[in-house]
Amino acid sequence: MSRALLDVALVHAPVVNRRGEVIGSAVTNLDLHDIARACRTFGVGTYWVITPFFEQRKLAKQIISHWTDGYGKSANPDRGNALSLICLGKSLEEVIADTRAKWGQNMQVIATCAKPRPDTVDYRKMRSLIEQGQPGLLLFGTAWGLAPEVFAQVDATLPPLQATGDYNHLSVRSAASIILDRLLGDRG
Amino acid sequence: MSRALLDVALVHAPVVNRRGEVIGSAVTNLDLHDIARACRTFGVGTYWVITPFFEQRKLAKQIISHWTDGYGKSANPDRGNALSLICLGKSLEEVIADTRAKWGQNMQVIATCAKPRPDTVDYRKMRSLIEQGQPGLLLFGTAWGLAPEVFAQVDATLPPLQATGDYNHLSVRSAASIILDRLLGDRG
Repeated sequence: MSRALLDVALVHAPVVNRRGEVIGSAVTNLDLHDIARACRTFGVGTYWVITPFFEQRKLAKQIISHWTDGYGKSANPDRGNALSLICLGKSLEEVIADTRAKWGQNMQVIATCAKPRPDTVDYRKMRSLIEQGQPGLLLFGTAWGLAPEVFAQVDATLPPLQATGDYNHLSVRSAASIILDRLLGDRG
Repeated sequence: MSRALLDVALVHAPVVNRRGEVIGSAVTNLDLHDIARACRTFGVGTYWVITPFFEQRKLAKQIISHWTDGYGKSANPDRGNALSLICLGKSLEEVIADTRAKWGQNMQVIATCAKPRPDTVDYRKMRSLIEQGQPGLLLFGTAWGLAPEVFAQVDATLPPLQATGDYNHLSVRSAASIILDRLLGDRG
């Protein structure tokens, strides 16, 4: 499988809570595992986990090391294979700069959101751009989603999944898996 | 959104462990939440959680009740809305019989598997059948997947996701989310 020029970033700050206040959320074990496994399945380059909190990055590093270097490596090597895609980042600005340095100035930063946004790029169009070699960084928000200040830094936003429905509360693990399948998945 | 005639069942027994031995796995909180939220998003009728172990069904019931009747109902009503789709089942045989009684003898039992199987129905074909009103029960296995004896009871199996890739270790939460999107999702 050829690898797409697509990286993923899970943002823990700045995000919003249920009242719309800008907060930093906690890293969770399952977000590391499930999204790393989906990234590995669909050929994503790097899975960035972004948090400004040193202790949270330390915790994430300990979890990852268990599977890439510790006992987990021999007990379940497939898990380490996925978790080795994770890089820990301090801020979105730093991660965007690093990704642009890797892939060039034409790299696009694409947000995801459970609510409709302006400057939307639909899934078919984004899939086609990726197939043509467009490099991208795809952002997912934890808690109640990416903070408004994040949208000011992106080139476009993907539309909500199942916008025709009456329920828009997928877990970020589910949303990331579905969106990677829509952008990079085979067409069985 | 019109509701598809599709139910989902998460099977905790019989499944296989990493050595291929037939076991019963433990219910996990996140499998209840993430898959219920995906089922609710895509209009699934019932989300069956199947385990023969009374204590495991009791635990699942306590978790669900917290969100449908307890404190969680007022704190986050969207979560109860999703978890209310869950029915607890003792055995696959019982769940198949109940679902057939609900939807008639033409209901199809469809398995999912991370490895290629005979009697495959591809995603496009299954989506088309559902759109034409075919009722179905879609099975997902926990642990290392559904036991061989389960496949003897199904009408067909969906192909592995991303079969062209070199990594087939998605979480069941990710796989269920992607498969529901492929079968029922909008086409943005």
